[in-house]
Amino acid sequence: MENDLRTKLLQAFTEKPDEYLSGQELAEVLGCSRTAIWKHIEELRKDGFVLEAIRKKGYRILEVPHKMIPDEIRYGLETMHLGRNIHYEETVDSTQRIAQRLAYDGAQEGTIVIAEEQLGGRGRFERAWHSPKYKGIWMSIILRPKVPIMQTPQLTLLMAVAAVKGIEQATGCEPGIKWPNDLLINGKKVSGILTELQADSDRIHSLIIGIGINVNLEPSDYPAELLDTATSLFIETGKEWDRATIVQSILLELEKLYTIYLDNGFYPIKLLWESYAVSIGKRVKATTLNGTLVGIAKGITEQGVLLLEDDEGEIHTIYSADILIES
Amino acid sequence: MENDLRTKLLQAFTEKPDEYLSGQELAEVLGCSRTAIWKHIEELRKDGFVLEAIRKKGYRILEVPHKMIPDEIRYGLETMHLGRNIHYEETVDSTQRIAQRLAYDGAQEGTIVIAEEQLGGRGRFERAWHSPKYKGIWMSIILRPKVPIMQTPQLTLLMAVAAVKGIEQATGCEPGIKWPNDLLINGKKVSGILTELQADSDRIHSLIIGIGINVNLEPSDYPAELLDTATSLFIETGKEWDRATIVQSILLELEKLYTIYLDNGFYPIKLLWESYAVSIGKRVKATTLNGTLVGIAKGITEQGVLLLEDDEGEIHTIYSADILIES
Repeated sequence: MENDLRTKLLQAFTEKPDEYLSGQELAEVLGCSRTAIWKHIEELRKDGFVLEAIRKKGYRILEVPHKMIPDEIRYGLETMHLGRNIHYEETVDSTQRIAQRLAYDGAQEGTIVIAEEQLGGRGRFERAWHSPKYKGIWMSIILRPKVPIMQTPQLTLLMAVAAVKGIEQATGCEPGIKWPNDLLINGKKVSGILTELQADSDRIHSLIIGIGINVNLEPSDYPAELLDTATSLFIETGKEWDRATIVQSILLELEKLYTIYLDNGFYPIKLLWESYAVSIGKRVKATTLNGTLVGIAKGITEQGVLLLEDDEGEIHTIYSADILIES
Repeated sequence: MENDLRTKLLQAFTEKPDEYLSGQELAEVLGCSRTAIWKHIEELRKDGFVLEAIRKKGYRILEVPHKMIPDEIRYGLETMHLGRNIHYEETVDSTQRIAQRLAYDGAQEGTIVIAEEQLGGRGRFERAWHSPKYKGIWMSIILRPKVPIMQTPQLTLLMAVAAVKGIEQATGCEPGIKWPNDLLINGKKVSGILTELQADSDRIHSLIIGIGINVNLEPSDYPAELLDTATSLFIETGKEWDRATIVQSILLELEKLYTIYLDNGFYPIKLLWESYAVSIGKRVKATTLNGTLVGIAKGITEQGVLLLEDDEGEIHTIYSADILIES
């Protein structure tokens, strides 16, 4: 209930970003006393918000806190469902692990888990994902699409498109996508996505999408062996970026694309994915569970799987692989 | 450790079913004292085993207990891996729920969860599964195949074949399979299978296969509304069957088929599935997430999905549906 009032309060400020909102007005909108409003304003201040208060005019938010606390994500969030329920932690083993448990216990669609730091962050193929404190976005999103598991590859590609568009929106920087869902800038990885699911053979129960984005990491934040293959938005642009703004953009883009997908199917998403793809048309080495294939990445199918043409001209359908772009 | 000795002891009796095993011999095989053997024999007796003990010859098992305690499943179990780790409960909400948690916490492949009774047993599409005490087999099996999620339908069909063969082996009764994995005798359901998975978009982490088999249920054990559609091995054969023996047969058949599948792919399993299928070639009504289709079930693909030809001659690929055989 308390938390609910806080959410509504930030929502009210979000809707009128440059106006002063009076205690009276806020009390009416929120359906509580002016004393309760005053108490919540004081709590926002304690959490690091800077508020201007002018007699006879009201309150206005001037600055949001440095940490990515849930309120900072809520303030300015334009989605309908995604990110409305935020599970925030300072330090976790992995946001995926928490989201898996929440999903299993029935968490609603759009619930996100976000942490300032992951000690055991993981990417595809159980690889470690370096997640230093306050430097990046380490987030898991719970979706509950009513679709068969065969459509999982499509949703994985959809998330990659949402991340590219969100990052572009917030920073002006447009990463390319390496199949299926690595985001690259100048050939180096700026973001990785891990899609996990709880399902039965008929349909998906929960899709738990983990995304790691290297936002403000400096070269000294990386272990030496990662410097050849990883980068960050800070390294590429020379600027520090507000992580909450990027989270908001990605959630908004994801919500738009997800709605399009549920209404119109994969085709519009496929076109977008292809427009950002950097691996298509290139010679690639694909390491699969059953061995290694080398050839030209020809494109993706309607199912979202990769087509690879080997040197004998044979076309292979690749459901899962680690891709190295050779030229 | 104690439990380990018990397992080895029953293993020793399993390997030589008609022989007397001396305390000395057992002590050597198990690497413990004769006193320890004597103690374990006494505990078997307390749990309901009837053992014959003849001086200078040794021990022999004459009768196993009435309840399906783990030892009764172990005694006579010929598998290498499946069912070697048994999680047994008298009463549970659902064996799938327990198995899901065990799988998530890292339970080894082949772990089974078995209960005498389920209070909240569930089948496909969240339907209730009636699971009265001591009357049936309510079991979940954890597998960890290193395959992409696209192969889940194949594994679902594989389980149906293993169940048919196991039931046939133990009782002589051969159910037919209605796509994908309902087992029918005389058109009524004797067993249902629910395949759930924990996965990422690259591969399956755990497959949790739930199977319910109506073994010794009498008509009075069913709610009235189920009598038209459900049956039991007892109702069909007039005999009471030993549930542990059926579990053992199914686990053995499953292990054989699963090994064939991992080594040789789906093709041999497909042939077996087709040989037991009762829905193929028939006119069926398929209720899917996107609506209802009526037509002739033509067969299954290499992926394990159903092909249905509608009245206009168009072929539809069905990943998930509820099938009603019309003729």
